Formats: sequence, structure tokens, C-alpha cells
Amino acid sequence: MERADRDLAFMLRYENIAWYEDGTVRILDRRCYPRRVEFVICKRYGEVAKAVADMVTQSAGPYTAAAMGMALAAFECRDRSEAEQRAFLSRAADALTNARPTTAKRMGQICKTMLQAAEQAWASGEDVAEAIKRRAIEANDSRYRKIETMARYLVEKIPDGGTVLTQCFAETIVGMMLKEAKRVGKTFRIFCPETRPYFQGARLTATVCYEMGFDVTVITDNMPAFVLQSEHVDIFTSAADAICMDGSVINKVGTFQIAIACRYLNVPYYVTGAPDLVHPSAKDVKIEFRDPDFVLQAMGVRTARDGVKGYYPAFDVTPPELVTGVVTDRGIFAPQSLAEYCQKGGSGEYEVVV
Amino acid sequence: MERADRDLAFMLRYENIAWYEDGTVRILDRRCYPRRVEFVICKRYGEVAKAVADMVTQSAGPYTAAAMGMALAAFECRDRSEAEQRAFLSRAADALTNARPTTAKRMGQICKTMLQAAEQAWASGEDVAEAIKRRAIEANDSRYRKIETMARYLVEKIPDGGTVLTQCFAETIVGMMLKEAKRVGKTFRIFCPETRPYFQGARLTATVCYEMGFDVTVITDNMPAFVLQSEHVDIFTSAADAICMDGSVINKVGTFQIAIACRYLNVPYYVTGAPDLVHPSAKDVKIEFRDPDFVLQAMGVRTARDGVKGYYPAFDVTPPELVTGVVTDRGIFAPQSLAEYCQKGGSGEYEVVV
Repeated sequence: MERADRDLAFMLRYENIAWYEDGTVRILDRRCYPRRVEFVICKRYGEVAKAVADMVTQSAGPYTAAAMGMALAAFECRDRSEAEQRAFLSRAADALTNARPTTAKRMGQICKTMLQAAEQAWASGEDVAEAIKRRAIEANDSRYRKIETMARYLVEKIPDGGTVLTQCFAETIVGMMLKEAKRVGKTFRIFCPETRPYFQGARLTATVCYEMGFDVTVITDNMPAFVLQSEHVDIFTSAADAICMDGSVINKVGTFQIAIACRYLNVPYYVTGAPDLVHPSAKDVKIEFRDPDFVLQAMGVRTARDGVKGYYPAFDVTPPELVTGVVTDRGIFAPQSLAEYCQKGGSGEYEVVV
Repeated sequence: MERADRDLAFMLRYENIAWYEDGTVRILDRRCYPRRVEFVICKRYGEVAKAVADMVTQSAGPYTAAAMGMALAAFECRDRSEAEQRAFLSRAADALTNARPTTAKRMGQICKTMLQAAEQAWASGEDVAEAIKRRAIEANDSRYRKIETMARYLVEKIPDGGTVLTQCFAETIVGMMLKEAKRVGKTFRIFCPETRPYFQGARLTATVCYEMGFDVTVITDNMPAFVLQSEHVDIFTSAADAICMDGSVINKVGTFQIAIACRYLNVPYYVTGAPDLVHPSAKDVKIEFRDPDFVLQAMGVRTARDGVKGYYPAFDVTPPELVTGVVTDRGIFAPQSLAEYCQKGGSGEYEVVV
């Protein structure tokens, strides 16, 4: 197993996001990290799907969890006939794919890739669970290399001594961005909105930035416009849960209003990631609503009185007109020109960035 | 003591915001309300100033607290000579005025008004503390009548069956708006951003709306743009800590970015309040920064790891171009035409809305 970024304190944590080993998937519980470092231990693929639904892991975490969950499913049914295993893995793929509605299409692609790995293992007589795990690691390594390339393009847009505003937790790209900045000798301040209701920005993004040695400041989610205006922010950047082919960005709720403020205050917004052929436009993405009561508490303490309702859209849609550039592994594209991303790939074949 | 709105459940609480009685000022502790109903008991005016600085009360609360704190100061020095009382009250006025920097000018006006009440009491031989208290109640009653008028203008802008987005806690105007809506037989849904870091929206605004019998939903501070777009919001409204004569609005941090989103999504923004002659423009207002560590916790639970910095501007400035109308007790004005508000008053003399 090769990792270009084994040296990052951050990646040490990333490796623990979701890991299959000996009939168990261990998932770092991001709901309480960094206050407590705890893992959810899954002995069945259904527990992995539930962990994803319950936000034990999020951002890119569910994609690794789905792949590792498929390895676990293969372990669960290892003593059955090949036909029964095939049916079992197909049910596992369904359950993992649909653990969260908004990401179902990408999760489906990942599960399909893992099913292909299983087919190859049956054909060659290899252990199916180990074959799936190896494919999951390969996919992650491929993703790391792509994100490392994105980080190079992104860091070129950040002036040395400048200021960056983030949104939510973009684990790999944040780590890679900071690593690349160090490599080229740049430093900058980072402002992280706390990202309610789960506080991913305060708990996760800020931790990565701090541990990488950067000057990091947490703000509440009502402060981005103030910070954009008063702290001379040079660039707003976020990853995306999906970048549609029409240039719409699906990301953690709040991205849209920061992008609107950026437009008003003339701060560029660069989103990182690969466009998704499975999402021609934002209309093809189902925005997921989660348990409304969850917004009526903070860090486990109830905020509103009984009877008051909550409301919890997990994501929002930023239209292409608010996106300055899409930072991909093949360069930076205008949001209106994402078809070029696929053309630039040579084969035109789209590879899932797991 | 007359109160037009004695029947409001909300006003029962309002009466307890800050109250002088028998040498004591009681202040409802909004930091833990409605989870716990507790009062801070002040025996010295310095404790009132500290309570204001510590955010025991906020929004319009500090103005009443300052007036009642002056009554307490008069009680404290009641056995001294008139010259000594005058010096003592002058020191009290200084301390209360400067309890919070952003509101210092308005607090100063209130304290000055209370000093005038003291002068009249010395001239007439009346009990100074009681005279100040009576002046504070008169000022509040005058304010209630003005806000009741504002509420009439505001409710005209809300369609029956419509949807309203609020920001932070605008206690009197929110209560009056709902009372007026009931009077004219209108109903509407209300979305309240929770208003980090103190959760005034989740704890206070939502409680008032619920207790007044309205359909109220709390959202986190990263959701306003999503709600504006997805829930057909008809009007965004907020009160203001100050409305400058140039039409700039100083209000709880977050107002600016909601107003930007409103402009982008074509939702009108109406601010309620009287323009402030003491603030010709936003440049004349000092934006207050509070303890940065406070944004690194939520409801008393730490969110970020040690070493990460916080940042806490209490207010932001919304420029006049983002304000649809300023709803005053003399009608609704364009933010660029606030001089007319003073002219319309007849005498041209500006009366402090305590």
C-alpha cells in the first residue's frame, strides 16, 4: 500500500476514517472528534450503512466506508455459494448506496466498482473481501494523487501571506492544500466557519489546519460576510459533495450564502473536485433533509423550547454563476466549461474519484 | 404604570428584563433562558454595568438596564449631599454608558435623560431613585407605543399565509408584530436563525413566537439563503442596534450576509427602528469585538481543539443599498431618505427611543 502523504499528521487520522480488517470495519466517529477519539466497530455491512446514515463519518468518509463495507459484506457471506454471495453483495451494494440520498449516485458507482472487483476475485479464486479491500485502497490512492494535483492548482491561487476562508470539512484537499503550501514555501491565515449543526469546521477542519502548523481561526456561521469584508480574504474555497456537469455545486448547507457574499464582495470562490457525469445538473440531485430536531441542539445541549420546529437541509446548491473556477486534477475550469474536463482526460472515459 | 400590551405572554417576560425595586435591580439572565429562568440581582450600579458587559441582557435590554441602573445609583448615594449625589450619578452614567462600546452613544443619551430626571427630583425634593425609575418607565411606555406603530407598518408588508425570516432577537417588535398580526387576522410562518454564539434566535425569538401561537421553525445560521430560496420567504425583517442617518444598519453579526442573500434572491429586507442622529454614518459606530474564545464553545461545550483561535465581532454593518425600507413609528422610509423621518416629526427634535 503506497501513500504519497503518509507523513501528514492529518492523513494518520484519515486512514482511520473507515478501515476493513479481519471481518470488521472501524470508522472514526467524527461526531465527537476531536474531543473524544472513538471508533464505531461494524461487524455487518448494515451497520456500516447505518453509520453513514447517522453521520459517524461524512465528507469523503462515506465513500471509503461504502467500499470497505462491501469488503465486509464479502467476508460475511464468504462460506456461501458464489451465486448466494453475488446476491448478498448486490443487497449490500443497495443498502450502502442508499445510506444517504444526496450521495446515492456516487455511492452507487463505488459499490459497482467493488462488485467488479468481486467478479474478478471469483474468476481468479482470490479471497473476495481482500480483493475488494485492495480495490478500495487503490481507488483511495488514485484519489489522493488527483487531489494532490488539485492542491497544486489551488495553492497557485492563494497569495503568500494571504487569507483563506473554508466551508465545512474537506479533509483530503485541506490537508493536501496545506502540504503543497509548505512545499512551495507559502503561508496564509485560514478562517473556518464552524459549520452547524455538526461543527465540522470547528472540530475537524480547524484541527487539521492547526496540526499542520497554520494560523487558524474559527468563526460562527453568521460571520463569513463580515470576515470577507473586514479581514481581506483572498479566496473562498470548498470541496463539493457533487459538482454537476452544468457547473452547479452541491455542498454543505451554507456554501450557497457564502458564495453569494463572495460575489457581492468580489472575493473569488474556487471549488475543488471532479465534475460528476452522473449529475448533469442540480435538478438531478436530491437534497437530503435530516432529522429536524438535530438543529434544536448544539453539542448535545437543547437550545430551543419544546414545540418549536427544526429544519435541516444537509446541502445546498450554488449556481455556476457564483463559482469562479472548478479546481480539478486536470486544471482549473470555468463552471460553464466542464465538458472540457472529460475531453481533456484523453480517453473521454470518466473515472470515479472515490 | 400603563402598558398597552400587558396581555402579551411575551411582555410578562419583558417586564422582567431589568427592574429596579427597593434598592435592587433584577435582570432576567438571557444567557440561559428559556432552559432556566434565572435573574441576576444587582445591589450596585457597577453590577448592572457588568451584567450588560457580560450579556446577561442584550437587544433592547441594556437600555432599560442602564435606566434602572441609574435609579439604583441614586438609591446607593441617597444619604449623601446633593453635590456628592450629582458626582456619584455622573460616575454611574459613565460606567453604564460604556458597558458595551457599540451602544455607547445611545446608552449615553439614556443616562443623560435619567440625569435630567434626577435634577428635577432635586429641584422638587422628590425621591431621586423613584423619579428616575418613573422616567425609565415613561421612556419604555413611549417606546412601546412607537414600536406598536412600527408593527402596524411592518405587518402591512407581510402577506396573510406568508413566510417571514427574522434575525437575532428583537423582543419588543417581534411581540408587537405578532400581536398586530392577530389583531388584523393575519397568520404566517416564521423562520428564526439560531444566532450564534448566544443562540438568541433559537432560545428567545422562537420562544416568543411559539408562545404567541405562531408556526415557528429554527434554522442554523448557515441556512438562511437556502430557506429564502426554498421556502418562499416573503420578507426578511430585523431590528437594529443602530440605524445610521445614512441608512446603514448596525445589527447582530449575520444580518449583513442575510441581506446580501435577500438582494440576490429578490426578497425585501425591512429593518425596524428609528434612525439615530448620534450616528450620521456607519463610520461613527465602533463595532464591538467580544471574547474570541466564546465562539469556540456552544451551550457551554467546547467545540474546537486547544490552539485554534476564535473571532467574535458582535455586530455587522448592512449598507443602505441592501435595505428595502426602514420601518419607523412615522412610516416606512427609503434608507437614503432618513432625514425625512426627523422632518416628519414636526418639531424636528429627535426623541430617544429608549
